[in-house]
Amino acid sequence: MKLGRLNHVGVATPSIAASIAYYRDVMGAETIGEPFDLPAQGVTVCFVDAPNVQVELIEPLGENSPIHGFLAKNPAGGQHHMCYEVPDIHEARAWFERQGAKVLGEPRIGAHGTPIFFVHPRDMNGVLTEIMETPHGDRH
Amino acid sequence: MKLGRLNHVGVATPSIAASIAYYRDVMGAETIGEPFDLPAQGVTVCFVDAPNVQVELIEPLGENSPIHGFLAKNPAGGQHHMCYEVPDIHEARAWFERQGAKVLGEPRIGAHGTPIFFVHPRDMNGVLTEIMETPHGDRH
Repeated sequence: MKLGRLNHVGVATPSIAASIAYYRDVMGAETIGEPFDLPAQGVTVCFVDAPNVQVELIEPLGENSPIHGFLAKNPAGGQHHMCYEVPDIHEARAWFERQGAKVLGEPRIGAHGTPIFFVHPRDMNGVLTEIMETPHGDRH
Repeated sequence: MKLGRLNHVGVATPSIAASIAYYRDVMGAETIGEPFDLPAQGVTVCFVDAPNVQVELIEPLGENSPIHGFLAKNPAGGQHHMCYEVPDIHEARAWFERQGAKVLGEPRIGAHGTPIFFVHPRDMNGVLTEIMETPHGDRH
């Protein structure tokens, strides 16, 4: 395992619309994607581009959204997870399991269309960590 | 204001030594700096390089460290702040004040030797945000 690029920082928000206005008007983001739903993950997401990395805005979608608990503790939203790229999702999953880290479920297709999984923060230095197979034909 | 590159994600930790071992052995980080103290800010810091961004590990230094409260709520540590680069620290400070954001103190020299300030999370979409003048001769 070699530390890959940080694809995005996930930021939970009670309102993607308000967060888009903030990133556009206060932070000066020039490239902000259209929000889209990921029903299987219970979130609506929207990517904001910084020059070297993205911010993934995530808003709860549905009653069972996994981020309701986070927003209950952090009503204004806040940093939720960090997502690193790997060349091969299955090798990465096996690696983390060999380290004794708690991998949360099977790899599934994430917001960028490539497989991802999450690893429990208790085994990741306190940070909920998403591992994502590098998109093919990625701009980076 | 134009959104600059994300210089680093600040990650609070109760033990930089343990976090270094995690980033090296579990995440595969190949370039990890030496920890150093920032007494004026009440933290010991250490930078871990990902290909496109850094993780800034921060451990409390002294009784009055501003991150004791964060670690009391998050004993394992976790994501603490996001730091964006700007070309001119004073222009940036005036910009955020004009937006009505709560700038926390005067610009001061940060961990990379250039001036920085923090902006209160309540005005920054829930994220404690550090603004940092881009280092001259930066590798990026």
